[in-house]
Amino acid sequence: MAPKIKDVAKKAGVSVTTVSRVLNGEKYVKDELKLKVKHAIDELGYAPSHIARSLVRKKTDLIGVIVPDLTSSFYSTILSSIEETASLNDYNLLVCNIIEDIDKELKYLNVFKQMRVDGIIIMHEKLSDEIRSLLNKLEVPVIFSSVKPIDQKFISLIIDDYQAAYDATNYLIELGHERIAFIGGDMRDITSGQNRYVGYRNALTNNHVKIIYDYIKFGDYKMQKGYDLMKEILACEPRPTAVFAVSDDMAVGAMNCVHDHQLKVPDDISIIGFDGSQLTELVRPRLTSMEQPIHEMGKLTVETLIQLIEDQEGSPEEDLILGHKLVVRDSCKVNKKEA
Amino acid sequence: MAPKIKDVAKKAGVSVTTVSRVLNGEKYVKDELKLKVKHAIDELGYAPSHIARSLVRKKTDLIGVIVPDLTSSFYSTILSSIEETASLNDYNLLVCNIIEDIDKELKYLNVFKQMRVDGIIIMHEKLSDEIRSLLNKLEVPVIFSSVKPIDQKFISLIIDDYQAAYDATNYLIELGHERIAFIGGDMRDITSGQNRYVGYRNALTNNHVKIIYDYIKFGDYKMQKGYDLMKEILACEPRPTAVFAVSDDMAVGAMNCVHDHQLKVPDDISIIGFDGSQLTELVRPRLTSMEQPIHEMGKLTVETLIQLIEDQEGSPEEDLILGHKLVVRDSCKVNKKEA
Repeated sequence: MAPKIKDVAKKAGVSVTTVSRVLNGEKYVKDELKLKVKHAIDELGYAPSHIARSLVRKKTDLIGVIVPDLTSSFYSTILSSIEETASLNDYNLLVCNIIEDIDKELKYLNVFKQMRVDGIIIMHEKLSDEIRSLLNKLEVPVIFSSVKPIDQKFISLIIDDYQAAYDATNYLIELGHERIAFIGGDMRDITSGQNRYVGYRNALTNNHVKIIYDYIKFGDYKMQKGYDLMKEILACEPRPTAVFAVSDDMAVGAMNCVHDHQLKVPDDISIIGFDGSQLTELVRPRLTSMEQPIHEMGKLTVETLIQLIEDQEGSPEEDLILGHKLVVRDSCKVNKKEA
Repeated sequence: MAPKIKDVAKKAGVSVTTVSRVLNGEKYVKDELKLKVKHAIDELGYAPSHIARSLVRKKTDLIGVIVPDLTSSFYSTILSSIEETASLNDYNLLVCNIIEDIDKELKYLNVFKQMRVDGIIIMHEKLSDEIRSLLNKLEVPVIFSSVKPIDQKFISLIIDDYQAAYDATNYLIELGHERIAFIGGDMRDITSGQNRYVGYRNALTNNHVKIIYDYIKFGDYKMQKGYDLMKEILACEPRPTAVFAVSDDMAVGAMNCVHDHQLKVPDDISIIGFDGSQLTELVRPRLTSMEQPIHEMGKLTVETLIQLIEDQEGSPEEDLILGHKLVVRDSCKVNKKEA
C-alpha cells in the first residue's frame, strides 16, 4: 500500500493540515515543522498525488502540444526545444501527433480541456470551423508556434515568411539564375503556403525575372512530395537551373530525385531549402537553407505561454516575429549565363 | 464561467448523481436518462474534469514515456507509432526527453508517480541505482521498449540484438570483405552496446576473419560521433573495405565522412547501418541496414502495456523478441579480392 498523507502526519507527529500546508508551499509554517514533515515524507517514500493537489491549486502544470508530424526533422527539433524549456520551468508536456487528421485534433483539444491543461501550443494552421469554435471557448492561453492561422486572436511566434521566401529567391537571382522553379507548400496555409509563394513571386517580379508557371508546384512539406514534384520539374523544357523548396524535407527529396536522374547538385541544378533543420548538415552536398531559429522559437514559445499562464506583467499582446537567416552551404552555385 | 455538473443536471432534469453515473459509464442507467444527459452536455458545452474523474476512477489514462533523444530518427519514429496506438486506445502521453541526463530522468519518474500515470514506457538502459530503486517501488506497470537493462523484472520489447549484429557482419563477410571495421555503441548498454559488439566479434571469429583492434570504435549512436570515428578508421593502414555501424545515425555520419574525404560509398568502402530508420531512404547512396520493426515495436509496446494496466488475461510475463531483417539498399558491394 502506498503511504497516505495521514501516515506522513502520524510519522511526523503533526496534523494532516500541517502536512498539507507544507506540501502546498504555504508561508508561515515553522521551519521545524517543515523539516519534520520532509523527513517523514522521505522515510515513507510518500508521493503527494498531483491529481489531488491540482484540484486544490486549480493548476495542473500541464501543457498540451499539438504537433503535425513527429517524424519531420523540423517538428522533432522544435518539440525537443519546447520540452527542454518546459522541463526547466517544471511544466510537463502532453504530446499529440495529429498527422493532418482534423478529427484527431478535435479529440485532443477536448482531452486537453478535460485534463485541465494550463496552456496549449499548436504548430499547424489548418483549422476547421469546429476547431476554431472550440479554441474560442477555451479558458486557457493558446499559442501558435511557427504558424499564424488567419483570424485568430491568439499570439503566434513566427518568422516573416514572406520576407524569408523573398530573400531565398533573391539569393538565387543574385547567383545569376533566371529559370528558378518553386516547390511550395499547401496553399490552404497562410504562413507556410501563401506567404512563401508570394515572397517567391515578388522576388522574381521585382528583379524582372520571368515567372514560368510550369516551374511552380505545390506540395505538403514532406520529402516524398519534394521527390515527386522535382521529377515533374526535371521534365520541363528548358530545365530550370535552380529550385527553391519551402521545406528542407522537400529540398532533400528534390536533391535525391536529381541524384537518381544522374544529375548533380549544384553543378546541374542549384537547390535551396527552408527551415534550417538537422537535415541540412546531414545530406551531401550539404543543403543551403533559409533558416528559422528553431531552438529559439521552441524556447520562446514556452516562455511566452508560461507568462500568459501565470499572468505575468509584461506578457506580450502581439505576435512575436523572429529573425530568419540565410545559411549558405554547398547546394547552390553561380549560374553561368548561356552564350 | 464553465458549466458545472449541477448545471447539466438542471438542464437535463435529473439528479447530479445520475449525471455522474452516465459520465462514469455505469451500467443500469436507462437509455432515456443517458440521452437527456448527453443532450444537456452538448448544449452547455460541458467538459467533465478529467482530474475529478481520475480521483473517482483511480485511473488517469496517462502513459509516461521516457525518450533518450527526440531528434533521433529512430526514437521520433517509434514515438510516433507509440502515440498513434495510445490515441487509438484513448490513452494520452506525457513525453519526457532526457538526453542522457540521469537527474532529469529521476525527476520525471517522480513526476510520473505524482501524476499517477497508469503505466510507463522507457527507451533507454542506463539506469542509476537511484532509478532502479525508484522503479522497483512503483506500483504501475513499466515496459522497456527496444532495450533490456540488466537485472530488471520488467518486460522488454526487443529484437535479438546479438543475432542481428551477427547477421549484419556476416552479410559483409559473404560479400567478400575481410577488413571490416565496427562503429559500436556505448558498452555500458547491454542491448545496443555489448550484445551488438559480441555479435560482430563472433561473426568474424566463426568465419575465420581476423579481428583487428584498430578497426573497432565505440560511440553514442549519434551522427556526429559516426563521422568522428570514421575519420579515425579512414586513417588506419591498411584501410578497411567495409564498416558496420550499430545505428543508422552513426552510419550516415560515417558515409558523410567518407564523402568529405573524396572517397565513395560503396565503391571505396561499404557501409551497413542498424535500425531501419527513415534515414536509410533519405541519403544517397541509400543505406543498407539491419532493420528493427520500428512501427510494430511501438505498437506492441503500447498494446502490451495496456494489457498490463488493465490486467487483461493472457498478459505477457516474459520479454517479447521481435524479428530483425536485413534490407539491402545501395551502400554495400562485393569486395574484389586483392591479387
